[in-house]
Amino acid sequence: MTAPRSSGPALAVVGATGAVGSVLLQILSQRADVWGDIRLIASPRSAGRVLAVRGEETEVIALTEDAFDGFGKGDIVLFLTPAEVSARWAPVVTARGAVVVDQSAAFREDPEVPLVVPEVNGHAVRIRPRGIVAGPDCVTAAMIATLGALHAEYGLADLAVSSYQAASAAGRAGSEALRRQLSLVAGSTLGEQTGDVRRAVGEDTGPFAAPLALNVVPWSGELREGGWSSHELAVRAETRRILGLESLPIAVTCVQVPVVTGHSLTVRARFEREVDAGHAREILEAAPGVVLVDDPEAGEFPTPADAAGTDPAWVGRVRGSLDDSRSLEFFVCADNLRKGAALNATQISELIAGEFA
Amino acid sequence: MTAPRSSGPALAVVGATGAVGSVLLQILSQRADVWGDIRLIASPRSAGRVLAVRGEETEVIALTEDAFDGFGKGDIVLFLTPAEVSARWAPVVTARGAVVVDQSAAFREDPEVPLVVPEVNGHAVRIRPRGIVAGPDCVTAAMIATLGALHAEYGLADLAVSSYQAASAAGRAGSEALRRQLSLVAGSTLGEQTGDVRRAVGEDTGPFAAPLALNVVPWSGELREGGWSSHELAVRAETRRILGLESLPIAVTCVQVPVVTGHSLTVRARFEREVDAGHAREILEAAPGVVLVDDPEAGEFPTPADAAGTDPAWVGRVRGSLDDSRSLEFFVCADNLRKGAALNATQISELIAGEFA
Ligand SMILES: NC(=O)c1ccc[n+]([C@@H]2O[C@H](COP(=O)([O-])OP(=O)(O)OC[C@H]3O[C@@H](n4cnc5c(N)ncnc54)[C@H](OP(=O)(O)O)[C@@H]3O)[C@@H](O)[C@H]2O)c1
Ligand SMILES: NC(=O)c1ccc[n+]([C@@H]2O[C@H](COP(=O)([O-])OP(=O)(O)OC[C@H]3O[C@@H](n4cnc5c(N)ncnc54)[C@H](OP(=O)(O)O)[C@@H]3O)[C@@H](O)[C@H]2O)c1
Repeated sequence: MTAPRSSGPALAVVGATGAVGSVLLQILSQRADVWGDIRLIASPRSAGRVLAVRGEETEVIALTEDAFDGFGKGDIVLFLTPAEVSARWAPVVTARGAVVVDQSAAFREDPEVPLVVPEVNGHAVRIRPRGIVAGPDCVTAAMIATLGALHAEYGLADLAVSSYQAASAAGRAGSEALRRQLSLVAGSTLGEQTGDVRRAVGEDTGPFAAPLALNVVPWSGELREGGWSSHELAVRAETRRILGLESLPIAVTCVQVPVVTGHSLTVRARFEREVDAGHAREILEAAPGVVLVDDPEAGEFPTPADAAGTDPAWVGRVRGSLDDSRSLEFFVCADNLRKGAALNATQISELIAGEFA
Repeated sequence: MTAPRSSGPALAVVGATGAVGSVLLQILSQRADVWGDIRLIASPRSAGRVLAVRGEETEVIALTEDAFDGFGKGDIVLFLTPAEVSARWAPVVTARGAVVVDQSAAFREDPEVPLVVPEVNGHAVRIRPRGIVAGPDCVTAAMIATLGALHAEYGLADLAVSSYQAASAAGRAGSEALRRQLSLVAGSTLGEQTGDVRRAVGEDTGPFAAPLALNVVPWSGELREGGWSSHELAVRAETRRILGLESLPIAVTCVQVPVVTGHSLTVRARFEREVDAGHAREILEAAPGVVLVDDPEAGEFPTPADAAGTDPAWVGRVRGSLDDSRSLEFFVCADNLRKGAALNATQISELIAGEFA
């Protein structure tokens, strides 16, 4: 960097113009400012756009080798980009000695890259042989703080999860496709017969495998052995990794719903020890990054509309199994762009910045 | 009845103007016509309306004692009404010797009233000490044929179900509330921040406990011990009853999604015997009332938009557990107004009509 560096490490945000990037810029403006210079980077398509961060107008520059000029040890580069972009450019950054925090799937399975959710395994951030730290998928991120807290008390033995995933998990293209489809179905004289939604939406389903407006789509990712989706297997592998439970039985069904932002999950967890729902509620209430809202008759339960735009995971509908004294059911919602991505990446970056302080 | 009766038992449809009633009239027009006179009944609000059934314009009459004039042994009265209405009027009908088929919750827990899904326990229709037969809740109805078929082969040992319920399960008021909310959120400059959906929708959430447009609502029914909802306990009790497995462990989480018609469920089923997903697919393919669509990469998986307006339960995403050779996961969709109500009631009525043929 040619300009004199203000105090604190420099931060580059690659993918600053995306769904996660936009939320990240908001978050940087809201949290304690530990950063020196902040550089915004995106594809050449976005070069020259001006975005506000920390109240300053900042020009977006194109992702090239030069974009990282001046970055070195102690500085941090966030990748909020498609996995191919992260995979291609992270080594360019680490070669300069700066640390990469990647929010894509590029490095999540790499044993030399820690996969970190600060509330659960923040310590793991310090051991990063490749100079890269990864954040999890937004489904994993939504539930992991609740699971971590319950596991510490009761010992997790088995997990069954069903997701209700928001469209913005597929980035700007996802929320735009849902909004487009909603206006198409709203404009049509929609009955309740087969094919009505498909006819109204047409072939252009955006990043989804079927129309999402007024519908539910039980598929995301690629096909893997046994009929599982790559997304489901990723949630399973990441949950095991972050909790440090490499052989935990986990069943996941990933389903997309017509919500713009905010992932919801139903979780059935079986533990090694007996559980008491009242005590479990106390644990969840005290867990970092988790807020309990659990008085359904008073209208207190989590919904994605309420979780969107907030930092924590909202948990409710906590019930002890009627058949098994070691099982709990609950429902959890979190903002997929915040805890599921931008917030988690910011928290990781702050931990790393703290090391050099 | 004063007019000469045509051949076949007379049929009265109480609640002919409702969400289920309207679909029932379509179904009567589509299936083999085994009925003599068909009488349409609703509240006094609807008296005088003219509806088409079997191609004939038929006037709706108000529910009074006189509405059942001429009905007796061998005739059938369908109640597609709120539970209080069914509870109040079913005895009036049975006192005349006609059989009641009730689609509400009024009699589902009565041991003297068989709870019937013809594909699974059609035989039960014949033993009806009170002259009343009940159909199940629409969540139970969506999955019970798949469970029945798999249970016959493998022996069910444990069930965890999460629902993705459509708005029309709450009747006309439900689908109208969702449509109203969708036009409100479509007209607002909706961001992705907390409260946006709540602000756009306002206080009038219709029959739902929170706004349903662009949201997911994990609550329906009343609060029961342990934080369970009455709806969840009903699905559990009905599933056990229909399968004849009075102590089957079942966990259910009922969640409403912004879909007009078509319930979806994720099901995790553990069996007494080892399961093979390929063989399970064959069983489901052969099961009555079930259609298998399971080639996700080719876009073949069930969605509620595709199930709406059709008779069967559509099942897909059939996967063997990765951890337990006795467990299966799958995803099932069915039209809550058809298999979940009107179709099932029609099938029951046809079985009873057959007894007198
Ligand atoms: N959305 C979520 O809920 C979520 C949650 C967890 C993880 N993630 C992951 O986070 C990453 C970003 O997701 P998103 O939802 O923000 O996606 P998005 O809305 O599509 O944004 C993608 C960003 O990457 C940039 N980009 C794309 N191709 C590029 C290239 N060749 N060179 C430089 N920049 C490029 C885009 O810049 P332009 O604007 O210039 O095209 C944009 O800033 C993805 O890996 C995603 O899987 C997302
Ligand atoms: N919707 C589903 O997916 C579903 C599935 C399974 C079971 N069920 C059950 O089926 C029943 C009907 O549901 P729905 O969804 O069709 O409800 P709906 O759309 O609200 O229709 C209710 C029907 O009942 C009639 N009704 C209401 N109060 C009455 C009264 N005092 N006297 C006579 N008729 C009266 C209404 O007549 P007016 O039009 O004159 O008011 C209307 O025809 C309910 O018990 C429901 O729980 C529904």
